[in-house]
Parts: sequence; C-alpha cells; structure tokens
Amino acid sequence: MSNPASDDGRPLLVGVDIGGTKIAVLVVDRHGEVRAREVAPTAVGPQDQAAGAVAVVVERALSSAGAATEEVSAIGVGVPGRVDPLTGTVTLAVNLGWSDLPLGEQLEARLGRPCVLENDVRAAVLGLHQRHVASGLDDLAYVAVGTGVSAGVILRGQLHRGARGLAGEIGHVIAQPDGPLCSCGERGCLEALVAGPAIARQAHEAVASGEVTALSTVAEPTAVDVYQAVIGGDPVATRIADNVGRRLAWAIHLLVMTYDIERVVLGGGVSHAGAAFLEPIQRELDRIRRTSALAREQLAPGIVELLPAGADAGAWGAVTIAALGRAGAGAGAGHGRREVGHVPES
Amino acid sequence: MSNPASDDGRPLLVGVDIGGTKIAVLVVDRHGEVRAREVAPTAVGPQDQAAGAVAVVVERALSSAGAATEEVSAIGVGVPGRVDPLTGTVTLAVNLGWSDLPLGEQLEARLGRPCVLENDVRAAVLGLHQRHVASGLDDLAYVAVGTGVSAGVILRGQLHRGARGLAGEIGHVIAQPDGPLCSCGERGCLEALVAGPAIARQAHEAVASGEVTALSTVAEPTAVDVYQAVIGGDPVATRIADNVGRRLAWAIHLLVMTYDIERVVLGGGVSHAGAAFLEPIQRELDRIRRTSALAREQLAPGIVELLPAGADAGAWGAVTIAALGRAGAGAGAGHGRREVGHVPES
Repeated sequence: MSNPASDDGRPLLVGVDIGGTKIAVLVVDRHGEVRAREVAPTAVGPQDQAAGAVAVVVERALSSAGAATEEVSAIGVGVPGRVDPLTGTVTLAVNLGWSDLPLGEQLEARLGRPCVLENDVRAAVLGLHQRHVASGLDDLAYVAVGTGVSAGVILRGQLHRGARGLAGEIGHVIAQPDGPLCSCGERGCLEALVAGPAIARQAHEAVASGEVTALSTVAEPTAVDVYQAVIGGDPVATRIADNVGRRLAWAIHLLVMTYDIERVVLGGGVSHAGAAFLEPIQRELDRIRRTSALAREQLAPGIVELLPAGADAGAWGAVTIAALGRAGAGAGAGHGRREVGHVPES
Repeated sequence: MSNPASDDGRPLLVGVDIGGTKIAVLVVDRHGEVRAREVAPTAVGPQDQAAGAVAVVVERALSSAGAATEEVSAIGVGVPGRVDPLTGTVTLAVNLGWSDLPLGEQLEARLGRPCVLENDVRAAVLGLHQRHVASGLDDLAYVAVGTGVSAGVILRGQLHRGARGLAGEIGHVIAQPDGPLCSCGERGCLEALVAGPAIARQAHEAVASGEVTALSTVAEPTAVDVYQAVIGGDPVATRIADNVGRRLAWAIHLLVMTYDIERVVLGGGVSHAGAAFLEPIQRELDRIRRTSALAREQLAPGIVELLPAGADAGAWGAVTIAALGRAGAGAGAGHGRREVGHVPES
C-alpha cells in the first residue's frame, strides 16, 4: 500500500468506517498487515457524542493491537454523508442526523493524531482499488444501494470527485419522469425506485392494494423482507425485485457508457440479499448484450460483481484515506476550491 | 496554447475538421494566431479518395498562409467516428461510409508531416477548453446532437477517454425502456429519441397519424423543418421540440450528476436551430432546479450554453490534437492499451 503519511516514522494507520448501526475500526501497519480489527455494533449516536463514541472504538482497537496512540501516523474516517476533506467537517449526514460537525477536529483533539475524513462510498472505492478487489483495474465504480444510491468512481487509478466534489450522484439521475417523489424533491430519481425505502414502499403498495403475497404477513415489510420472499418464490416480491434489478442494470449501463469503466462493484444494505438481488441485474444486462453490439463491447460479462463478504472496503478505504493524508484528500478535490463530499446514505 | 510539438522548430500547426458535408482547415502559428482558414463545402467522399480530398484543402490553406509544408510541425484531424489515435486509423465512421481506413498514414505519405487523428467530438471539447470558450473551466462536456448524440468530456483539464476509449457514449444511455428502436439494436436509447433522425421520425409519425400541422406541407420533414415550424408557432412541432428538450435536459442533468462538470456546451446539426432548440432544454432545467435542492446546487443557471457561432471548435480542437502530438493522444487513452475512439456521428 502506498503510504506517504508513514514517512513520519510512525508505524500504524487507523481506518474508521462509520455506518448507521456500527463503527468498524482497522489498525494496519506500514506493510498493510492488519494489527487489529474492532467492530462496535452500535449506532454512533447524536453529533455531540460522535467523536467520543468513535474515539472509544479506536482506543479499544489500538489496545487489541497492543499499540499506543503515538504509534499512529494518521486516522482515516469514512462517513455516510457529505464531508469536507480539507477541513474535516461533516457537512450533512442525514441518516446520522448530523450537520456541520467538525468531527475531524474533535477526533484530533481526543486522540492527538491527524484525522482525515471522506465520504464512505468514496472511501470504499479507494479501498477496493488499493486492495485490488476488482482485479487490479484502474477504472471502476462502487455503487452503494442502501438508504440511498450513489457511486464512488476511480478513473485511471485516481478517485474522481468532480469539479465541486459532487461526482457519483447517480441516485438522483432521473430514471422515470413523473415517477415516485424522491427525498431531493424531484420525481422518478433512481433512488426513489431502487433504494431500500423505495423497495419497502413498493412492498407496502402491493400489500395495500390487496395483492396475494407473503409480504402481507409482515407488519412493515422492508427490502430484506422482499428479498426473503423472493427466495421463497413469492411472485409479487419477485416482480418488485425484477423491476429493481432492471433499473439497476440500466444505471450500471449508464455508468459504463458515460465513464467507460471496466468494473462495477455493488454494495450497500440492499445488496446483502446476495443472489436474489444480483440475478435480476445480471439477467437484464444479458438482455442488453443480446440486443446491442455496442453494449456487448462495453458491458463485458464480468462487469458487475457483489462486494465480497468480509472485504471491509469501507474500513480499508479509510486506511487509504489515512495513508494519503489531508493533502491527498485535497488533491483529488475541486482544484483547490472548497471541497464538499456528496450526499449518499448507504 | 500549449504546444509541445513545436519544439521541433517548425512554426505552424494545422487542424482539420472533417464533417459530413465539409472539410475545414485552420493553419495556426505557435502563438495561436490564425494564419489561414479554408473551408471546402463538399463531402470528403469515399474512403479511397479521402486522404487526397483532405490533402488538397490542407495544401490550399497552407498556400493561403504563404507557408510551405515543411513549416508544419504536425497536422491534427478530427473525424466523425471511431478512431485509434495511436495508429491513426479510422476504425468506423458510419456517416462517411469508412471503416478501417489508415487515414493518418495516408495523409503523412501525401503531406510528409506527422498526422494525429481524434474523434471529432473529443477534438471539439479539447478545442473549447484550449480556447477558453467555456470561461476557462476545467470540467466541462461538449454534447453533439446531430445524426447521433455523444459527449466529449474534459475532467480537471484533461480529455477523459475512459478505460477503453469509449467514454461519453451518452447517446446510448437507456432513456425510455421499450422506446423506439435505436441503430445500436437496443430500444429507447437517448439517441433514438432526440437525434436528428429521431426528430424527423416523430414529425413523420405526427403527419402520418393525420395531426394538423405545418409539417404535413413538407415532403420529408427533417429536424430543421421541425424547428422552423416551432418558430412559426406550430403546436405539433412545438410538442416534439418540447419532448426533445426535456430529454436533453435530463441527459445534461445526468452528465452533471455523474461527472460533476460545470458546463455543458451543446453543438451538432440539431443545435443549429438555436433558441428553438435551447429554450425547451432551459425550461426543463429550470423546473428541475425549482423541485430539487440538490439540482439547484449542481445545475447552476449558466450551466448550458450553445456552441458560439464561429467558435470553430472542431478545427481548433484538431489544432490542439496536432500540438499534443501522438504521445498526447496516447497518454489520454487506455493505459497504453489499444485505443479506440467512440461512435458518435454528429
């Protein structure tokens, strides 16, 4: 792993992946060997307690590694929301209920070591690239399908943040004009059709309209319930999953047609359904390949893969963020202008 | 203008823009001053005569400049089709009827100077960037709406070709599932809804279905006829143009959401309709801004502009291609792998 920040002679890097219901921490040495891994299966809490909650898990991981804080070169933190890597501020993390939180500064004050923040989806794609999960490819995307939908993109080996740090907002591409209302205010955004809450809404609508489905036995069916019903052969759940799969196949096709990337790795909460989630996507990509010569050329058969279980992409990406340091975070950003991360909530 | 190729001491660069019905040539000195401009308003012809037809216009332009071929450092050529910049081969130019044409080699044999080929849309966006047409922005796209639809994209000041040289194929993004058949074999591609032939098809369908419209007085209405009828207040033509405008607004929105670019310049044959073409696009972008806070942030009011008349983006881009030389063409391509340009036919 390239590790310019370790030039300070301190042997360790720490990566922190903050999720909606967990805090995962990796402690890695300069050879990329894992010295400790710690997962706290709890929500990180309100923003005035966030730095404390993260610091406790980091300290526990360092203790497991038998290491002192002084041995840490830098701490990278992936946050599900908008971040400003240059100032270490979480601008907006809707799912965590945070806004304008100077988390980097607070963590530095508590832990005494430099902290670098990045959006979690971007951190994840950096982690996938650094760990060669996608066969060492230098042009790839990580698409998180969870509470929202967004993409982290590596182009020619570099994180693509965009002019204003807003690249990869594919959840808000207009996929079905006059479709369901999206949280952004627009109608028919991809996110309003395929994210977890959108899948739950479709299940609810099917039940409410009196369709015969196993989903009617669940009080408030979620995306998890829908994919479980798919595995059980439920036709209504299968129809919902097929529609979601088709939409996601078109989004993958869109990413490949615009960026010309060679691999799309799918992750996020909804993707945990595994084959039930992936198969409808692959089926639609196969159909597109059959109909279009151009698609055959661009959508190679292995273009999509699920994030491997245990890939720990988020935490590894946070380690990469730590290795690159704040200069690296800024370098990929908007030409020295103020950088804001994007909105994704996976 | 950055001009590494002029290190050979030869003072001139030549840019050639090959269109469907014209060959435009610019002769520029190392200070970026135009020494001659020559436009042959004729089709370039079949591929066995192509190099000859281009060479004649280049020689005429050099003669106008009072310059000898020996003074030319390099010749850049923009071709409406797929090109391999590393070998100087036109792989496929559907509208010109060319395939596997070693045009670069043939021109070098005729003119005795190095020739560098590039796809015309990519050459155009390079020209816009180099000439600071888009206010000196370093993240922009040029979208050509003509016989097809495609985008040339500059990210952080560099041409974005993609892993396989296929980036910017937005004409084949699936915009309307189960929509009209596209030339690529898929249904509902953007190109099958908004390119020149698609607009002509919609006019034909309206006339054939007996709608009351000025278009019924034209034997074979084209996109030009549709926009002229819009200016005349024809409601059917206006409906077609409005639909095209909405679709293009969503495509612009898509480009901005994925790439996070700051400007989209629209060109190509269909765009020559001017305000009648642009207004429906701006109207839909305004609507999106009103509904979505995220769109308000990303789609700044001035984000779209028409290619200025006389911008000569294609020829200037070809000059840039000449300045960058073959090394520059390859450097922006797929990591040293074989480079193929994309399919656009504008």
